Amino acid sequence: MMAVRLARAFTGRGTIVRVRGHFHGWQDHAASGFSGHFDGTPATGIVQGITDKTRLVEPNALDEANAVISSDPDVAAVMVEPTGASFGLVPLSRSYVAGLREITTRHGVLLIFDEVVTGFRCAPGGAQEFLSIEPDIATYAKILAGGLPGGAVAGRADILDVLDQQVMDRRGKEKIFHPGTFNANPLSAAAGTTCLEIIARSDATRRASAMAAKMRDGLNEVLARQGLAWAFHGQTSGFHLFTNPARREIDPLSFEPLGIPRQELSTAFDARAAGRLRLAMLNRGVDLNPRLGGLLSAAHSDADLDETVGAFGDALASARSEGLLPR
Amino acid sequence: MMAVRLARAFTGRGTIVRVRGHFHGWQDHAASGFSGHFDGTPATGIVQGITDKTRLVEPNALDEANAVISSDPDVAAVMVEPTGASFGLVPLSRSYVAGLREITTRHGVLLIFDEVVTGFRCAPGGAQEFLSIEPDIATYAKILAGGLPGGAVAGRADILDVLDQQVMDRRGKEKIFHPGTFNANPLSAAAGTTCLEIIARSDATRRASAMAAKMRDGLNEVLARQGLAWAFHGQTSGFHLFTNPARREIDPLSFEPLGIPRQELSTAFDARAAGRLRLAMLNRGVDLNPRLGGLLSAAHSDADLDETVGAFGDALASARSEGLLPR
Repeated sequence: MMAVRLARAFTGRGTIVRVRGHFHGWQDHAASGFSGHFDGTPATGIVQGITDKTRLVEPNALDEANAVISSDPDVAAVMVEPTGASFGLVPLSRSYVAGLREITTRHGVLLIFDEVVTGFRCAPGGAQEFLSIEPDIATYAKILAGGLPGGAVAGRADILDVLDQQVMDRRGKEKIFHPGTFNANPLSAAAGTTCLEIIARSDATRRASAMAAKMRDGLNEVLARQGLAWAFHGQTSGFHLFTNPARREIDPLSFEPLGIPRQELSTAFDARAAGRLRLAMLNRGVDLNPRLGGLLSAAHSDADLDETVGAFGDALASARSEGLLPR
Repeated sequence: MMAVRLARAFTGRGTIVRVRGHFHGWQDHAASGFSGHFDGTPATGIVQGITDKTRLVEPNALDEANAVISSDPDVAAVMVEPTGASFGLVPLSRSYVAGLREITTRHGVLLIFDEVVTGFRCAPGGAQEFLSIEPDIATYAKILAGGLPGGAVAGRADILDVLDQQVMDRRGKEKIFHPGTFNANPLSAAAGTTCLEIIARSDATRRASAMAAKMRDGLNEVLARQGLAWAFHGQTSGFHLFTNPARREIDPLSFEPLGIPRQELSTAFDARAAGRLRLAMLNRGVDLNPRLGGLLSAAHSDADLDETVGAFGDALASARSEGLLPR
């Protein structure tokens, strides 16, 4: 994972701090703490020497992050999904991310934003623009290639200077050798620049975000009308369904996910019931995965939104009347 | 690196044996021993816990490989470029690879072929078909996607069974969780199946190999005619220029790279002189990188070959007469 390697090479330190539940791909350095091994033990196939250099922390627990970074002089970087796990399924508060920025700067630790999902989506400038917080390194994937396979590691010039096509620079300083025939793939690059030009020049991200807010509101009105203590939440163009496994007293119309433990936010209600709700939606022509939520795009119309909200209301009422969901 | 992780998960062991000079990308597990750190020390940005689980061996030294594998019960896999470093720049003998196959099988160690360059190129069945040796795991990249970004890890069904979209299977056995939006990219998949169908149905690989053999012969005739103790060598569709840094007595027309130390094979003659030779070739309309060699394709014609051989003869004579190359 190049962002991690860059951080280690630049700082000369080894330990990476990650937030439990955050997804950074299936690479070795991110294999613990996403969907298992929350205690930091090695996932299958991972050597102990890698997990020994990983510290997992709880989301939004700034004191804990501060304690880890302050007490361990070997911390090279903190890596986060900047809007929280799974594009805000378990959101991070802005103040937490701002706090990480401050603590990392104070200790010479790098802050890495995994912008694979948020990049050019939250805003034309990604989560960095949305949060007004600048990381030291940011990672991007298919969005940078217009949906084709591709990606990039961006960051401060002095950090990226460690990367090279040579093993040694002219002064004899060791570089990270980075050859590869996936580098600068012409088709992915062309699709990417075209996509990014559209995002930069148009109001695509703003429209997608506005449409998602409208849809979350519409879906929450369905929940409120039917008296079900669930809630749709999300930021910018995303939406997630909180199915309230601890049966908290919540109002769908004013639900605030910050403060709800990550286990509750990321735990779906009964998987079989979720599958049935999805089928009931499909019967009405809408594929909405209630376990994962989804994303709105600039191509979605008010008609799409009305259809989705209408289908959800029908599917929910019918599933509940048949005893397939809690009443 | 998924092949390495699969081998570790499947065997329950940690150590990976690699051959010095073999390239397996820039990932952490392959960062030492390709273009530096031949002693196995960590390259910049790599944690010691990774290199501690890597053993580097010399190419074609079967006794050494046997000693390492026999003495270390933690060896999970041996990973090689099956025709040798850089598509045969430092070739492996078939008997060495066959020996590795035998030793690994005897010790329950997996044999991994990195077929990123050799796959579907040496033969329609890749290096496995060319050598008639079957690895346990094989890795592929862009060739599998018709030149677009893409890749795959192939292998024995019982090994690949460790990989899943779930963290645990129904019997509670831990899996390697492998989600990702690069998986099954439609455009790369379509280009890949089309490319592989052409390779399977046509004589493309055979024609490219025949053309390369003809070109190596033609270029070596130039060297012999001009009395320069260099040689072009290579297998199937590749060619490499050996520039004889130790000034061995060799005949270009009967040169055999097996037995020449890897340092000599992979060391180019003076980099500045190589650059001048390349420019002299470019002046004659042919881009041939004398430091890297190259590959022939099924699209190359006899006319391309004649042009290349002719340009090389002219460029070489002119560069030597101007004192830019050894006489």
